[in-house]
Amino acid sequence: MPLDLATIRAAHERIRPFIKRTPVLTSERLDAACGGSLFFKCENFQEAGAFKSRGACNAVFSLTDAEASSGVVTHSSGNHAAALARAAQLRGITAHIIMPAGAPESKVRNVGSYGGWITFCEPNLAAREAACAQVAARTGATIVHPFDDLRVAAGQGTAAVELLEDEPALDVILCPVGGGGLLCGTAVAAKALRPGVKVIGVEPALADDVAQSFHAKHRISIPTPATIADGLRTNCTGEKNFPIILESVDDVVTVSETGIVAAMRAIWETLHIVVEPSAAVPYAAIMEGKLSAQGRRIGIILTGGNVDLDKLPWVKS
Amino acid sequence: MPLDLATIRAAHERIRPFIKRTPVLTSERLDAACGGSLFFKCENFQEAGAFKSRGACNAVFSLTDAEASSGVVTHSSGNHAAALARAAQLRGITAHIIMPAGAPESKVRNVGSYGGWITFCEPNLAAREAACAQVAARTGATIVHPFDDLRVAAGQGTAAVELLEDEPALDVILCPVGGGGLLCGTAVAAKALRPGVKVIGVEPALADDVAQSFHAKHRISIPTPATIADGLRTNCTGEKNFPIILESVDDVVTVSETGIVAAMRAIWETLHIVVEPSAAVPYAAIMEGKLSAQGRRIGIILTGGNVDLDKLPWVKS
Repeated sequence: MPLDLATIRAAHERIRPFIKRTPVLTSERLDAACGGSLFFKCENFQEAGAFKSRGACNAVFSLTDAEASSGVVTHSSGNHAAALARAAQLRGITAHIIMPAGAPESKVRNVGSYGGWITFCEPNLAAREAACAQVAARTGATIVHPFDDLRVAAGQGTAAVELLEDEPALDVILCPVGGGGLLCGTAVAAKALRPGVKVIGVEPALADDVAQSFHAKHRISIPTPATIADGLRTNCTGEKNFPIILESVDDVVTVSETGIVAAMRAIWETLHIVVEPSAAVPYAAIMEGKLSAQGRRIGIILTGGNVDLDKLPWVKS
Repeated sequence: MPLDLATIRAAHERIRPFIKRTPVLTSERLDAACGGSLFFKCENFQEAGAFKSRGACNAVFSLTDAEASSGVVTHSSGNHAAALARAAQLRGITAHIIMPAGAPESKVRNVGSYGGWITFCEPNLAAREAACAQVAARTGATIVHPFDDLRVAAGQGTAAVELLEDEPALDVILCPVGGGGLLCGTAVAAKALRPGVKVIGVEPALADDVAQSFHAKHRISIPTPATIADGLRTNCTGEKNFPIILESVDDVVTVSETGIVAAMRAIWETLHIVVEPSAAVPYAAIMEGKLSAQGRRIGIILTGGNVDLDKLPWVKS
């Protein structure tokens, strides 16, 4: 299955009953501060608290009944895990979730609340992939990778479709980059709907595997990054995603950790919404002057809102 | 000028260029927890961070050019002050704001950011009213009372008009009660648009002047209340509001301080939005079982989102 506007539109029809049409928010103050017009697509309001519900629902509801009957499996400690558990629950099938030992209680509880079957493993990528393959082999469950799966990327691209329906005249769309599923879905959807729009990925400088790869034009892997943006701690972009990113994305820029925290706080205070650090990364690029907003209409995908309210980065503990 | 659907609709037309059409959010989880369907009208996203921009804009843009040329004046340390300063700035006139000495820095800054002219006075109601009258006498400015002004109440009622446009089949509408401006605007709009709907005010038990007055059928004044819901620390409902509240409101119920904090946190965590304590008061009534949500469609006006992110009630300092 290719990733194109037709597959993204088909995904949109498929997932519509199971996801929210999230609003687009604006702010006089944030616009005045940057000299442009910013349009924030609030995927922090999405079911399970993140855009990941789009890709997870598309993957789960794309399965044949025979495939679905054996369930699905993934390795993730974050928003994809909760979104996949929820999607599986909606279809009435089993979701096996491989989580690293020591994952935060709140994330374990969240997956459990959607009926996910959790298996703990050693906290490294090799152990997670091995456990995932083992569960798949034993149960026949379909592996739904958090980002390197074009059904998932097609689902993620539906956020950009809605954003451009609400705000057709955008000059730029910014989204955070972890593994690149959202970025390639966004770029393919946006370029098909509005050929002149620029699509720019933003990454923490501490987790710049995609920025490095994009500029080197080949995939570069980095050690597990220590960024506060916990949704973007990936080692390397996906094999399937990367050629699409190279072809369709205009640039990948990076931001500092202090910039991420400042952007997160500015969004909470000004838009009055709760976003997680990963979701604040694109606005950090504007605050840090990594791209000019002057006179431009910029869409920003706010990816998620799952944070521990007892551990806010600006509160000294 | 009476307060009726026609004046509220006229207010809506008048203020439309200056306010936001705020979205209505829902949550599978909050619905499952209460057995009903909850529809949250997000006035925390309103310009200046609260529904107060509706009433303030209606008052300011109702003035004749001759009246407007002398400016407006109010006494308020909170959201009404910022909203009035913003409305005056939009009309290009002066807003004099009487604030109590010792008001939080963030609130003073907020009023200043909209170009309000601040006068400090002793922190009690008599001193605030005296200072307000003095400024009005000296400058000819029109007093725009925070709640006991039917132009203000008509503006506040426009939030209920939008809520019922988006969700026509509500059984109940809940709103917080401070001085009663929002409550009487909401009740008049809602009963005219949907006669069967119940309109219920919710107050902190520590600030139950309107609940007491409603049940006694005459206005009762209380000492300045110490509730965490800083937007609802009024001594007594307004003279103009009270007969409307008695006629149009179905009940006024009260909630505990711990209930307010628990409701605020639940809203932050589940809806992924920032609301101030006052805005969490109606949901606290559902959490505390002060009214049954079972099988009912309940609209809730989330009044504002102005909080100090360094002083969250669940973070020990």
